[in-house]
Amino acid sequence: MPEPTPITREQLHADDACDPLASLRQRFLLPDGVSYFDGNSLGPVPATVPDRLDDVIDHQWGQALIRAWNDHGWIDLPRRVGAKIAPLIGAAPDQVVVCDSVSVNLFKLLATALALRPDRRTILCQDDHFPTDLYIARGLADWLGDVRLVPVAIDALDEALAEHGDDVAAVSLAHVGYRSGRLHDMARLTRATHDAGALILWDLSHSVGALAVELDACRADLAVGCGYKFLNGGPGAPAFLYVAERHHDAVGFEHANPLAGWLGHRRPFDFSTEYRPAPGVDRYLCGTPPILALAALDAALDSWDGVDLAAVRRKSIRLGQTFLDLTKQRLDGLGLRVACPVDPDRRGSQICLAHDDGYAVMQALIERGVIGDFRAPDILRFGLCPLYTRHVEVWDAVDILRDVLTRGTYREPRYRQRAKVT
Amino acid sequence: MPEPTPITREQLHADDACDPLASLRQRFLLPDGVSYFDGNSLGPVPATVPDRLDDVIDHQWGQALIRAWNDHGWIDLPRRVGAKIAPLIGAAPDQVVVCDSVSVNLFKLLATALALRPDRRTILCQDDHFPTDLYIARGLADWLGDVRLVPVAIDALDEALAEHGDDVAAVSLAHVGYRSGRLHDMARLTRATHDAGALILWDLSHSVGALAVELDACRADLAVGCGYKFLNGGPGAPAFLYVAERHHDAVGFEHANPLAGWLGHRRPFDFSTEYRPAPGVDRYLCGTPPILALAALDAALDSWDGVDLAAVRRKSIRLGQTFLDLTKQRLDGLGLRVACPVDPDRRGSQICLAHDDGYAVMQALIERGVIGDFRAPDILRFGLCPLYTRHVEVWDAVDILRDVLTRGTYREPRYRQRAKVT
Repeated sequence: MPEPTPITREQLHADDACDPLASLRQRFLLPDGVSYFDGNSLGPVPATVPDRLDDVIDHQWGQALIRAWNDHGWIDLPRRVGAKIAPLIGAAPDQVVVCDSVSVNLFKLLATALALRPDRRTILCQDDHFPTDLYIARGLADWLGDVRLVPVAIDALDEALAEHGDDVAAVSLAHVGYRSGRLHDMARLTRATHDAGALILWDLSHSVGALAVELDACRADLAVGCGYKFLNGGPGAPAFLYVAERHHDAVGFEHANPLAGWLGHRRPFDFSTEYRPAPGVDRYLCGTPPILALAALDAALDSWDGVDLAAVRRKSIRLGQTFLDLTKQRLDGLGLRVACPVDPDRRGSQICLAHDDGYAVMQALIERGVIGDFRAPDILRFGLCPLYTRHVEVWDAVDILRDVLTRGTYREPRYRQRAKVT
Repeated sequence: MPEPTPITREQLHADDACDPLASLRQRFLLPDGVSYFDGNSLGPVPATVPDRLDDVIDHQWGQALIRAWNDHGWIDLPRRVGAKIAPLIGAAPDQVVVCDSVSVNLFKLLATALALRPDRRTILCQDDHFPTDLYIARGLADWLGDVRLVPVAIDALDEALAEHGDDVAAVSLAHVGYRSGRLHDMARLTRATHDAGALILWDLSHSVGALAVELDACRADLAVGCGYKFLNGGPGAPAFLYVAERHHDAVGFEHANPLAGWLGHRRPFDFSTEYRPAPGVDRYLCGTPPILALAALDAALDSWDGVDLAAVRRKSIRLGQTFLDLTKQRLDGLGLRVACPVDPDRRGSQICLAHDDGYAVMQALIERGVIGDFRAPDILRFGLCPLYTRHVEVWDAVDILRDVLTRGTYREPRYRQRAKVT
C-alpha cells in the first residue's frame, strides 16, 4: 500500500470551513485559548444556560416563590426534560424521566430487574464498567445477601450467559466504555441477553449526545445516562433513566422501585400515609426535584434543536480518524500506544492513547491549553464533541502533544503532583 | 382572669422597630406586596445566591471547565457545606455531608440502622410522619421482605418500644411535625429509644434553621434534613445527613450504605473495580455532586453568619404567640380551629389553623398576597421565619384572613380549582 498523503493543518481548516455543524459552536460559551477535549467528562456552558438560571432564580424563585411549582411548571420538569432526552436515545414518549444521579438510578433499575425476574438472582456486569456501575451492583448484591454479582469481560458475555443460564436477572453494560472508548453492539448484546431470559441495563453516559442511541429499536429494557457529559447540563447535572413501556404493566413492576419517595407517588399532594406508585416511569422520581439543576439541563438540551444525529456521528468519526491518522503521522516512536478501537464502527466519541507517564503528559498538555483527561493507569483521553470540536483543534492537540513528548517537558516534577480529581 | 389588652398593629410595628434580628431581612430578596409565610416549604432567595450562581456558571464552569473540580474546590463542596450546617444542628465536625435528597438519605440511614443492629428487623415510624419518611421505610421493608415497618403514634412510642422490645432496629421521627407543627422532645425520645437498644433517626426538615437543634448533646444517632425550607437553599436543594461519630467504626458500619456510589469510595479517582468505602460519613456521597445546587445552598448558608440561634427561637416563639393571640382576638367564631400546640415549648416554627374549606381559604389568602400553604385534609399552614418575618406581617395575615372569612370570598368557585402542587 502506498503511504497516505500527509495531513496538513490547512486541510483541516478547509474541513472546518465546509463542516455543516460548524455554526453549532456558537451555541456554547468556550473560553479563549483552550482546545476542549473533555466534553465527555464535563460539557461546556451552553449559551442558553446563564439567562435561564437568572430567570429561574430572579423571576421564578424570587418573585413567584412557592407558587412557581405550579405557575412555572417546576413540578413537571423531570418529565419534560425526560421527553427532550427521549429522541436522543431512540425512546418513544413516556419512558424517560430525569432524576437523581446515575448511581442512584442504577440502584433503582437493578432492583427493578430483580423484581421483574424474581426467580433469578445473578447480575452480570461488564468487568471494566465505570466504577459506580460496579460498586452500586456490588452494594445491592451484598446488601440483599442472596444476589450474586458476576463481573464478566464483554467479549465473554455469551459464555457467561450460557454458564449462569437461567439465574441471570440483569446484564449491566456500558454502551461506550469510559476508558476503552469501545462502542458495544446494542442490538446484538440485547438479543443475546433476551435469549437467556434476562433484562439488559445500558449505561448511556458516554454515548448519549455523541451518537444516535436506539433503545426502542434494539428492544432494550432499562437504561441510565448522564446529564453533564455530551448533554452539557452542568457539573453534577441530574441523570436520566429509561424503562421500556412493555414493562410498565408487568408482574412485579408495582413494587419494582425500593426508593419509594414521595414524588414517585401517584398523588403526592394527597399526603396519604399509604404509598401508591405513579404510573410508568414517574414512580422513579423520588425526592423533590432539583429545580436549578434541572433548569440548566433543560436549557442545555436546546442546543440540540434541529441537530441531525447522523451528521453528529459522521463528524465524530471523521474527527477520530483524523486524530488517529495524525497520531501515526506525527507521534510515532514517542512512547504512545493507541488504546481505543481503530475501527470507527466500534469506537465511541473519544480517542485514547496510553503512555507510561500518562498523568504527567496530560498535565503538561492542559497547561498548554489542550484539555483532555487521564484515566488510571495510563490513559490519555480526548473526547470529541461534534457540536463544538473543530478539525483544526485536533491538529493543534497532536502538535502540542508532539512538542511535550519530544522536549520531555512532562518530566518536570510539578506535572506529577496528583490533584484530587483527574 | 382579666381579658388581655387587645394587640394593635402599632404595637407590632414597635416590636419590629426593636427586633434585634430585623436587619437580617436585608439578606433576602423578597418580592413587594407579599407576606411570605411559606419559608417552611420553600425559603426565599438569599441575596448572596444570584452572584454566586453567576460566578459558578460564568467563571468556574465557563472558564475553568473540568479543572474547576480542583481549582474551585467543587469536589469538597459536599463536606464543606455539611460543615456549615453542622453548627445549626449541634453537630461536631465530620458528621455531616450534603448529598442527594431527604428521601434517598432516609433510605441510606434506615439501611445503616439495620446494618448496625443486624439481629433486629423492626422499624418504628411515627404514624403522622411526612409521607416520604413513611414511604421510604415501607419501600425498604417490603423490598427486604423480612423487615417489619410499624407506624406508631408518637405519644405511644414508649408502649411500642416495650411491645416490640428487642426487635426494634430504628425509630424514625420528625423533630417537628410537618402538619401538626409539634416539636418533639429530642432528648427524651432519643433516651427512650436507646433504652430499648435501638437507634434513632431524626428528620430535621422542619426544625433546622428554625431553632437550635442539639444532635450531639441529645446523643442522637442518625439524622437527615432539608436544604430548601428554613435553610433557603433553593427549590429541590440537596439534603444533608448526619451519623454520630461513635458509629463510624462500629461493627457493621463498613457496609452500612447499600447505595455504594463512586463518590463514596475512599479513592474514587483510582477508578478501582473494588469498592472501598470512604471514612465516616463521606461514604454516603453517592453520585457526582450537583455543583450548581450545592453552590446555591452554600451561598444561602452565609445568611446565618453571626446569627444567634437562641434569638431566632425567641423571635419565632413571639411571632407564634402573636399569631395565636390575634387568632383568638380577631378570628373567633369564623370556623377556624387551632391545629398546632399552643404551648411554645411544644411547637416548631409554624402556626396551623384548621378550616373545613381550608384549600379555598388559602387560595383566597394567596391572591391577597399572604402566602402560606394547605395540607390535606383541612390545615392552613403559616411558617414563621425569624430571619425575615416581621411582626406586623402577622397582623396583616390575620387581618386579611378575617376579611376573607367574614366576606366569604373564599367560596368563589375559582378558589376550589386544585393545582398540582398545594
